[in-house]
Amino acid sequence: MIGKIVNAIQDEYADDYAWCYGCGRLNEEGLHLRTGWEGDKTVTVYTPRQEHTAIPGFVYGGLIGSLVDCHGTGSASLALHRKKGHEPGEGVVEPPRFVTASLTVNFMKPTPHGVPLKAVGTIEEIHPKKWKVHTEVFAGDELCAKGEVVAAVMPDTFMQK
Amino acid sequence: MIGKIVNAIQDEYADDYAWCYGCGRLNEEGLHLRTGWEGDKTVTVYTPRQEHTAIPGFVYGGLIGSLVDCHGTGSASLALHRKKGHEPGEGVVEPPRFVTASLTVNFMKPTPHGVPLKAVGTIEEIHPKKWKVHTEVFAGDELCAKGEVVAAVMPDTFMQK
Repeated sequence: MIGKIVNAIQDEYADDYAWCYGCGRLNEEGLHLRTGWEGDKTVTVYTPRQEHTAIPGFVYGGLIGSLVDCHGTGSASLALHRKKGHEPGEGVVEPPRFVTASLTVNFMKPTPHGVPLKAVGTIEEIHPKKWKVHTEVFAGDELCAKGEVVAAVMPDTFMQK
Repeated sequence: MIGKIVNAIQDEYADDYAWCYGCGRLNEEGLHLRTGWEGDKTVTVYTPRQEHTAIPGFVYGGLIGSLVDCHGTGSASLALHRKKGHEPGEGVVEPPRFVTASLTVNFMKPTPHGVPLKAVGTIEEIHPKKWKVHTEVFAGDELCAKGEVVAAVMPDTFMQK
């Protein structure tokens, strides 16, 4: 059921925006979440580390929150990129970078540790610069959490240094 | 403005429940979040690690989600413990362990990196076994995020091994 994401949007974020703890390819300590298309759905696959425990045997909720978060911003980036005629893997233009305006996670059942988690996203355009991503998180065939992210195109104020 | 939490509820969780990546004292890789009373508010203080970056200079949203999450379960535990006549630091009985039913975070503004974050919680009893915790996350005097956790007393099914 769970395959590798071949072309992930995070592979093409501009270097300045590739340091995110959740999904930045340049953050050595980070989770390296990667998000790609699967038809008109978006997919991120991640196997939690040993230390990502809640109660022994189950995955830490904050990790699931992180998965939903970066899956949300990545999915929004994929969607706006596609709307402009681009797909990850082309490498023609840098994709837009989104930030999270809000994050919601409903924990449906304890998420078992030791198996890959698959986040599957359905995208809704609220405004060209603001997208909502509805995410379901599966462990195997079990739906363990449902989440929602409102993601906005990153404002310029983020790059003040 | 930011002091150390002297008596944290997580210091007294039973050993079996003290492995949480966010707030378990026995999880060596974890964040070791600690939550205590400040009058009738609850407080958790945490300084993000260097790698907890979103865009350079700002804190990763998933880390703020984790802070709100464990602050929520810790606050609910404090509240039910107090309702039963106990305070952390007494060490008379083990406090109740809560799990997160839902987590919501609204990001008000980019959270600056390099300063301690203070989560301040206001607690609402929905049911003796279900509490809602409204949390504000401050960096210095700046309100950076608002969150909400619904926490439920951990069901026995969590301890299947």
